[in-house]
Amino acid sequence: MRIDIITVQPGLLESPFSHSILKRAQTKGLLEVYTHNLRDYSTLKHNQVDDYQFGGGAGMVMMIEPVVNAIESLQAKVQYDEIIYMTPDGQTLNQGMANQLSLKGNLLILCGHYKGIDERIREHFVTKEISIGDYVLSGGELAAAVLVDAIGRLIPGVLNDETSALLDSFQDNLLAPPVYTRPEEFRGWKVPDVLMSGDHKKIDNWRHDMAVERTKERRPDLL
Amino acid sequence: MRIDIITVQPGLLESPFSHSILKRAQTKGLLEVYTHNLRDYSTLKHNQVDDYQFGGGAGMVMMIEPVVNAIESLQAKVQYDEIIYMTPDGQTLNQGMANQLSLKGNLLILCGHYKGIDERIREHFVTKEISIGDYVLSGGELAAAVLVDAIGRLIPGVLNDETSALLDSFQDNLLAPPVYTRPEEFRGWKVPDVLMSGDHKKIDNWRHDMAVERTKERRPDLL
Repeated sequence: MRIDIITVQPGLLESPFSHSILKRAQTKGLLEVYTHNLRDYSTLKHNQVDDYQFGGGAGMVMMIEPVVNAIESLQAKVQYDEIIYMTPDGQTLNQGMANQLSLKGNLLILCGHYKGIDERIREHFVTKEISIGDYVLSGGELAAAVLVDAIGRLIPGVLNDETSALLDSFQDNLLAPPVYTRPEEFRGWKVPDVLMSGDHKKIDNWRHDMAVERTKERRPDLL
Repeated sequence: MRIDIITVQPGLLESPFSHSILKRAQTKGLLEVYTHNLRDYSTLKHNQVDDYQFGGGAGMVMMIEPVVNAIESLQAKVQYDEIIYMTPDGQTLNQGMANQLSLKGNLLILCGHYKGIDERIREHFVTKEISIGDYVLSGGELAAAVLVDAIGRLIPGVLNDETSALLDSFQDNLLAPPVYTRPEEFRGWKVPDVLMSGDHKKIDNWRHDMAVERTKERRPDLL
């Protein structure tokens, strides 16, 4: 899978893509991630990419011309399955959407910044608008990093043990059950007996019951 | 506001906190963010911080001892309003929660990694569990960065123009209206006439109507 990201803050994305699972995915050749500085596609003085919004009001808006230059210059080399705009009013990301996107070949992600992007880019170029949640961020960069991480770890072969992702929260509409590791007792707090029983059937049942219970208690809407 | 983050991947968080709004918040002295490497608090060989889960199954679990060492060592210096654990089964972050947290003094954020943290840490130390959305990430680091960004930009004085955050999506349970900037026409696509009218009352009404319409269309659940 190849992911291209257009941003005015390419530096912000450096460390998330060079650590942990995303680093591993790239080292294994399963994922390529490229960031592109939007300013390189400006034809204006000082590589301007934003301007005051028409009609007045606080906050700058990203201009259509440099964004379209960037999109079309990349499209000349790569065919994209989706051109995604990260925005709080997009479709809310969930695990099902991450699963679907992890099956795509090439994605282009556009990060807004300031007040957002000129609406005409959304109307004429963007094919999918994604929000990572009902809150506002300084820009689309962290949202893009979250999306790439959520997708990237689902690409077969990226995680060491593929069953690991299948047992995560949301994969079966249940939250994950509690987990414990050594020591068996800490300050008098013990690990549940069942986990120490060695009875795998009993352990599986307990985990399923705990997952259902936790979901009922915390997220009944998922059931 | 001071935010301390305990993580096994401190490097992953470097660039998000040294760019854009979060950099500005720190430069202005309005926000201090410190990352702490969990491995520094391990007393085991090779600075071990995770182990196999009791009861078997894929994925490592973060051990209670190093986490408690880290928490208590920080608590000896700082009094925290909340000890937050980033986890997909936590309370889902929204703008209201971000507003509330932006009024706090000191926050401690704990990033899970691998399969999660030992449940006893959640029972006995964590005061708030937060999820940034219904999807699974490689670790809590990007979720922590998202939380810090969502909160940090709301601290008074961080954004250049404070009215900017008040007009964002979700602040009034409405999505933001579309925005436009120069040029007025691009490839035949024009900016709506009303925005060029100079009639501020008409523009305000149009923006409100568009915000309501967009919310009805995309997120009727918010109304």
